[in-house]
Order: sequence, then structure tokens, then C-alpha cells
Amino acid sequence: MTEATTETEAKTNRRWLLAERPTGLVDTKSFQWVEEPVPTPADGQIVARVLYLSCDPTQRGWMSRDTYMPAIKIGEVVRSGGLARVVATKSSDYRVGDLVSGLVGWQDYVVLQGGGMFAPSKVPANVAPELALSTLGLTGLTAYFGFLDVGKPQSGETVVVSGAAGATGSVVAQIAKIKGCRAIGIAGGKEKCDWLLHEAKLDAVVDYKSDDVGKKLRELCPKGIDIFFDNVGGEQLDIALAQLALHGRVVLCGAISQYNETSMPPGPKNYLNLVVKRARMEGFLVSDFAARFGEAVKALAGWTQEGKIASRVDVVNGLENAPAALRRLFTGENRGKQLVRVADA
Amino acid sequence: MTEATTETEAKTNRRWLLAERPTGLVDTKSFQWVEEPVPTPADGQIVARVLYLSCDPTQRGWMSRDTYMPAIKIGEVVRSGGLARVVATKSSDYRVGDLVSGLVGWQDYVVLQGGGMFAPSKVPANVAPELALSTLGLTGLTAYFGFLDVGKPQSGETVVVSGAAGATGSVVAQIAKIKGCRAIGIAGGKEKCDWLLHEAKLDAVVDYKSDDVGKKLRELCPKGIDIFFDNVGGEQLDIALAQLALHGRVVLCGAISQYNETSMPPGPKNYLNLVVKRARMEGFLVSDFAARFGEAVKALAGWTQEGKIASRVDVVNGLENAPAALRRLFTGENRGKQLVRVADA
Repeated sequence: MTEATTETEAKTNRRWLLAERPTGLVDTKSFQWVEEPVPTPADGQIVARVLYLSCDPTQRGWMSRDTYMPAIKIGEVVRSGGLARVVATKSSDYRVGDLVSGLVGWQDYVVLQGGGMFAPSKVPANVAPELALSTLGLTGLTAYFGFLDVGKPQSGETVVVSGAAGATGSVVAQIAKIKGCRAIGIAGGKEKCDWLLHEAKLDAVVDYKSDDVGKKLRELCPKGIDIFFDNVGGEQLDIALAQLALHGRVVLCGAISQYNETSMPPGPKNYLNLVVKRARMEGFLVSDFAARFGEAVKALAGWTQEGKIASRVDVVNGLENAPAALRRLFTGENRGKQLVRVADA
Repeated sequence: MTEATTETEAKTNRRWLLAERPTGLVDTKSFQWVEEPVPTPADGQIVARVLYLSCDPTQRGWMSRDTYMPAIKIGEVVRSGGLARVVATKSSDYRVGDLVSGLVGWQDYVVLQGGGMFAPSKVPANVAPELALSTLGLTGLTAYFGFLDVGKPQSGETVVVSGAAGATGSVVAQIAKIKGCRAIGIAGGKEKCDWLLHEAKLDAVVDYKSDDVGKKLRELCPKGIDIFFDNVGGEQLDIALAQLALHGRVVLCGAISQYNETSMPPGPKNYLNLVVKRARMEGFLVSDFAARFGEAVKALAGWTQEGKIASRVDVVNGLENAPAALRRLFTGENRGKQLVRVADA
């Protein structure tokens, strides 16, 4: 393995391939480091220098099994969202120097082509790369559509967000405030809770590492929870189900507490409260809203400029640290959106 | 205890009171049989002779804990829907001889008053009492609103109903056929499955007592389940969650497999498939649709007259057998809507 580098040009294409389906928390042993020649584009393709990788909990699922996308094949480069700069093109749609966002993979150079659902999208010149992968990227879009379209908030409602200090959760909680809701975040540790209270300006926080979550939520939500936006699953979901308000909604975004379980974790035993409270639990995927991404990016960019959405980005340097960076999501070490800087922008 | 009687008039008011909160399957030991004087109405009240009791799984919940209604108090008459004939009135809204449907309780005579959510409703003279408590009663209304308003079926979709031979399930499956869906029922035993195929005219059935439910459903639903209407919970819900189609819907009506568990049963471990399939799981209570009961009764009565909905009613004679009749719901002995005939209509 070569030493940490963030230079713009490299002579080889360093890549992390999936070596085995991981069990439990990801570890470098599940990946194979290879160095290959820098690829050249075929007709219709581009080759782009990867600058940043986005770390997302869903990658853990891709490594294990078919989900909404086929599992990553053993021996394939690890699938990952990210940003890259076009360095060679045989596509009339892209020019050398374009900054694109897409499924770049854990590698120095990616071969991409236009068209289809996963076509690389151009990032406007005035958008900072880190913002393009957090609030204005799929993370922010996930928060926007999941909360507004699935959660359907009404002004005055009480919104509880698990994983509230995470990339998606922090945006959800701040959109909740923008929409006139009371926003309560659940996060682990004083530092994250302080950020949520003082930077993201939530109404209240619950520290699952030191608080009795059920008791604290009952105090904070005497009329119940109107919307629970769930990034965590497990016990926190069960507690929220038990405290739903009439016609409450549970927006299922993820279940980071469960992705590394080696056996099938138990389901939410309080699900029958959905009947008692005439409530709804619904999943979504941001890709289903692709036709409306423009609307969402415009709104999110506006709120960011107005100072209504604070973003927090946690950058690890070096492609070789991609497995460790992904792991931070599951240990809770990340502070906001976890990125890997592969090369200087 | 007096012997079984279905006479119209009685000299005493025989009543089953709740003696303790039952654990597990209900048994007569949880109830106390008392004989009291026949009550007389106060101003605004009526006294009615109870003719039929409706047995409903939700009664098991009422005996144990506060749900969408307060728990039945220890020493109170066991709460039950049913039909009764007015025998004395001090209300200008009801006349002697009126047949009313409402919360009559496990007793010979009930004191009722008009107004409020649980006011007794008059049953039209041309409706058979047994039909008024099944397809045209809360059971049919539950099927109608749960399937149409929560499930939102589209013609051509695949609908799977658990507890399909039960009072609600059988009506759901037949409305599914009326709306142009493929209807597949899950029930226990050949006799019930035969009835579903040959009388209720479902497209297919799964016998959970003899079939591998997961395997059979995969064969019957190669494109997945668009709507799962769940009366049963437990393993059947988990299997259906795993086989949902894209944008599938799980309508939570009940979980009869779980109401008698003495400890909290596990939740549906496949709930995260709601994310993968962008699917929704939603509970409802028929009482929320009270303003539209007229519309539903009209539709259900029409379909029944046209022979599109077959009804099946299972009548046990005698108030003293009310606990045993309720128990039949949980052992699966009932054949369609379980009623208790308390007195001759």
C-alpha cells in the first residue's frame, strides 16, 4: 500500500476491491488493495479523477446482499458515491475539467458514461465540493424528500429524529424547524448534542448514551411524536413507536444500529401501536424523486445561504483510509457527513 | 349458572363481569357470572334485550389494557358489540321494538343512551340480524375502509389476506375481486380453504397448517405482493414483508396470533424491506370512518344482493357460552363471523 496521498495526478489507479462479504463491523480484511494502470475512455465514456468519496450507511448493505441495487460483486471495486474531475473524455456531454457527482467507487480514477439512472451529474462551479456531497448532495436530498414527501409535516407538529447529528438527520431536523415544527434530536454524546442545540438550533436533544431515551422523550413530547424520522432502528424505533401521536408517521430512512448485526436483528415489537394510533410507517429511496432533484437543491441551497441549515463535514484524508472512514459511521465517531478526500480539488 | 336459554324475555339480567385481566387464552375463570334485576331506563335512556353478541379479536385487548379505548374495568360487564331490541324507553329517539346495534355487553339487558360516538344505531327492518353484525356491520365496514382507503387497491394488483376465512378477511378478499385484483387468502385447514376457493371465489389459497407459506406465496405471487391485509401478525406478516412488491402496502388490521401471548411477542424482523420496496405499513380503526358508514353499508348491501360477497356466520347459542365463543376466534375454530345468540330475535 502506498502512503497517504491527495495529489491531483497519480500514475496508477489505486483501487479497493471487495474481497469477501463482511460480517459485523467492516474491516480492511474484507477489501483488497490493487494498483492498476490509469484507464482510458472508450467511445461515449469519460475518465475522471476521484476527488472525494461519500461514506453512506447503505454501502454496508451493498457489500452484503442484493437490496434496491444488486450487491457489489466479489472482486469489483467498492461502490461509493463521490465527486470526480473529468481528465479524459470521449463523450460529447462532458468536457475535461468538469466536476461530476456519481458512483465513483473507492479508486483514483473512474470510467463513467452518460445516460441512465446513475449518469454522473455536473456540479455547478459555485458549489463547494464538500457541500455538493452533503447538504446539496444525496444526503440533503434524502432529508428533503423523506421528511417533506413521506413525513408530510404540518406546522406545530413535534418531530423526533434519530441519528440527528448525522448527515441526513441534521438536515431533517433543520428543515423541520424551517417548516415550523418542534425538532428534537437523538444523538450519542455531549459534543454532538451541543452541536445540535447551538449550531443546528434544535428545540431539544436526547443523548442516548447518558439519557433514558423513553423517559426523556415522554417529558419532551407530552402529546406524543407526530413524525419520527428514523436513521437508527432497533430500540430507538421501538421507543418512538410506543410514543406516537394519533396519525403519527414513522419515516424509515435507515437502521444504522442494525447493519452490522451478524444475525437477523429483532423487529420493532411495538409495531401494533400503528393500529392504536392509526399511524403509518413508510420507507423511501431518494432515487425515486430524481425528477424533482432540481427543486430540492434550489431550496436547500437557499436555506444554506440564509444560514438556516448548518452543515457539518468530517473529512478523512487518503483513499487508503476509505474502510476506516466508512467504519466511523457505525462506531458513531463521525461528526456530520463523513467524506474521504482522495485528491486535491 | 342457569341453563342455555334463547327466550326473548328473562326475569333477571344475567351478566358476565370481568373478574381479572386474563393471561393467555381466555377462560371462564377470568369472568364472573352474576344475576341482577332487569334494569329500568332513566331519562334519555333505553333498556334493550340483547339478542346477539359479536365476537371480535379486539375484545381480548380491551380485557388487558388501555388501547384505542380504555380497558374494561375489573367488575364491569364485558364490553361487546351486539344487537338488541328496545324493551323500555325514556328517549324520544328510540321506540319499543326498535332493533339497535351497539356496545351491548355480555348480558341479557343493556342500558343505552343516544348521542356520542357509541350511540346505538338503528338496524333497518329489512336487514337480517346476522348480516347486520357481519358483512353489513363493523366487520364489513372494517374490511371496506381498511382495504379501500388504507390499501388503495388498483385493478390488476395482487392482494394477500391473512385470516382470510375470518369475518373481516373474507370480506376484504371478496372486495379485492370486485375491484379487479387477484385475491389470495391464507387460512388454516382444508375446510376453510375450500370455502374460500369455492364459495368466496378467491383466486388461490394458502393453508398455513399444511403449506410452506413463504414458498407457496412466492409461487403464487411471482411479482410480489402489492397489498397485504393483515389480521394475523407474527410469522405471516414477516413472510409478507419479505415478499412485498415495489410500493407495496401492508394494511394492519390486527394480529390475532399475538393477542394471547403472555410476554411481548417479537416484532416483524423484515420491516426494513419497507425501505427497499418503498412500501408502507399502516394501521387504522374503523371508527375513524364513521362519517362514511352510510356509503359503505350501501355498497356492501349491494354487493351482497348481487351475490358478489358470500357471508359466513358461526353462531353459538347461549349467553353462558360467550367466553367459549370468544375463545374460538383464537383457536381458529370459528367458521366466519363468530356470534353468540342470547335471545330469539
